[in-house]
Amino acid sequence: MGTQSVVDRFTERDWASGTDGTVRFALVGLGWWTVDVVIPAIEQSTHCETTALVSSSQEKADRLADRHDVDAAITYDDFHDGAATDTYDAVYVGTPNAYHLEYVETAADLGKAVLCEKPLEATVERSERLVEAAEAADIPLMTAYRMQTEPAVRRAKELIEDGFIGEPTHVYGNNTQPILEMNPDPDQWRLDPDVTGYGTSVMDLGIYPINTARFLLERDPVSVSARMDSSHEAFENVPDQTATYTITLEGDLPLVCTTSQHAQQDTQLKIIGTEGTIELAPAFHGEATLHLSSGSLRATVEDTDYGAVEEMREEFDYFADRVLSGESIRPDGRHGLADMRTIRAIHEAAERDEPVTI
Amino acid sequence: MGTQSVVDRFTERDWASGTDGTVRFALVGLGWWTVDVVIPAIEQSTHCETTALVSSSQEKADRLADRHDVDAAITYDDFHDGAATDTYDAVYVGTPNAYHLEYVETAADLGKAVLCEKPLEATVERSERLVEAAEAADIPLMTAYRMQTEPAVRRAKELIEDGFIGEPTHVYGNNTQPILEMNPDPDQWRLDPDVTGYGTSVMDLGIYPINTARFLLERDPVSVSARMDSSHEAFENVPDQTATYTITLEGDLPLVCTTSQHAQQDTQLKIIGTEGTIELAPAFHGEATLHLSSGSLRATVEDTDYGAVEEMREEFDYFADRVLSGESIRPDGRHGLADMRTIRAIHEAAERDEPVTI
Repeated sequence: MGTQSVVDRFTERDWASGTDGTVRFALVGLGWWTVDVVIPAIEQSTHCETTALVSSSQEKADRLADRHDVDAAITYDDFHDGAATDTYDAVYVGTPNAYHLEYVETAADLGKAVLCEKPLEATVERSERLVEAAEAADIPLMTAYRMQTEPAVRRAKELIEDGFIGEPTHVYGNNTQPILEMNPDPDQWRLDPDVTGYGTSVMDLGIYPINTARFLLERDPVSVSARMDSSHEAFENVPDQTATYTITLEGDLPLVCTTSQHAQQDTQLKIIGTEGTIELAPAFHGEATLHLSSGSLRATVEDTDYGAVEEMREEFDYFADRVLSGESIRPDGRHGLADMRTIRAIHEAAERDEPVTI
Repeated sequence: MGTQSVVDRFTERDWASGTDGTVRFALVGLGWWTVDVVIPAIEQSTHCETTALVSSSQEKADRLADRHDVDAAITYDDFHDGAATDTYDAVYVGTPNAYHLEYVETAADLGKAVLCEKPLEATVERSERLVEAAEAADIPLMTAYRMQTEPAVRRAKELIEDGFIGEPTHVYGNNTQPILEMNPDPDQWRLDPDVTGYGTSVMDLGIYPINTARFLLERDPVSVSARMDSSHEAFENVPDQTATYTITLEGDLPLVCTTSQHAQQDTQLKIIGTEGTIELAPAFHGEATLHLSSGSLRATVEDTDYGAVEEMREEFDYFADRVLSGESIRPDGRHGLADMRTIRAIHEAAERDEPVTI
């Protein structure tokens, strides 16, 4: 596959089964991501519809349901009590990490398919319970890795499989953002270990290069070394204001990552091989741009119509396609659970200041 | 200092003392770098002239002296015997690593100023002897870090000192090349530990991000963790066909590096801070391009007239300016020796698979 093919079929839904139909969603957790990104993404989608909004606040659910013409507006308690189950087929869990489990358990009890945000939960143990609940109820469960349906990432994967970079030699990923500029509240949940889990930068940002590299290269982590520090007072309860870590992937391939919640926004994923280099820069959070280099070839491929909403639209339609067709879901619960084990190992390696086997 | 100032004075020689004069050079070691880059660089320079060529082969020295109209052509033995000392003021040592010491010792005996290629020698111990020889003879000694007089790097340093990126949070450097495509000989000296020293990728390539980050940030390495591997048969005698390492710089700042002698050519140095990002991509080996990002500002600054020859021209003129003016040299022998200690620690950390304090 050459670069022209990448350009010609950049946004092709190579995953589409062709199954018709619509999946009706209950959206659990009405934070800014759900409101500003997920609801518009579903409005743009082919196979999805928002039919229930679930919030801690009845007033907030009512207000947003009214604004977006959604059938049902219920509270978390209502959801657990099985309210409005006739209105939706699937559940999107977009709450803070440590609340995923309870909503997935209820969805499983109700026999609903689940699209659960990443990281899967706050800890490995809770993630295991989450996956087991879904498996026991035999419901479809997808971990919401939207990079796996991002066109630039899928085209990069095809090029790698086609030998464009030769044998990969090493991988670098960066994902940084200034979280206190985005939300000045020092008490926000991403800085509260009871809610976020092991920490903030790796759980929230580092998970992007980890999972995207796994997806692109089809190699899982084997061991990791790491360092972390938190110096700003807002980060006093989490260890990883900034974190750097080196993961050895299967086949002795190093994946080196840097991440910080207290730095300028920057995202990059670079895969260097014996014959070429594929770089995504920006890589995450919309606007993924593909930079290709091999021999004398240099090419940059981007779709300027793509942003976070379009990424989520692809993810939702992929999930709906799988639910409607009954085909297996690629980033399933066990796939998300593997990243939780890696993240835990990264934190252990930093704390012990020595390599940790995963 | 804003980006406009960076553009306006991009190639300004902010280091120039204004001293007139010419420094006459003996070039020791006539490999491709000396022939294809150094000789043309000196021909372009303001303050330098090649007046002696020193080689293992009298025939080679004669041939190149004839072609480039150079006064003296002598062998290594002649050089050690003090031949043609009236024809030159300073010595450029461009031999393989493990031969630097003997030529610097002779230059010191002869009272000549020395510009010595990096890494300074094959080992820390030999580098110490090299520096001590120069100090005992009180000759000027510069370690040939040409990135320190590369305009893009100097402008980046000014921007960092001016607060453009705020507080630096982490640094990433990559330097890779396909050495077996550049020189297919598996017996080349860079793969021979008796000549190259601790290894090949860190000594030859990794030294670029290490030293450039030190220069840009004015922070020295404190500790390091590292991993290395060699799988290709040509690399069986060196541990670091590919190496990744994380150096903690003063102020608890992580510098993460990846490097390989068996990968696609790629160079990058990215410094992320709380307020902005400065990236050099490409970073090393000519054509350094500056990418600036802060708030809503995005700028790319490059000088397309720059290449390796121009980088070496700046380095030689800087060195000559210091020799002529008597002002202190910034990347001196001790500065180069510090990098040797870091490189040794990187190899120790990889071998022991645990962090090493430098």
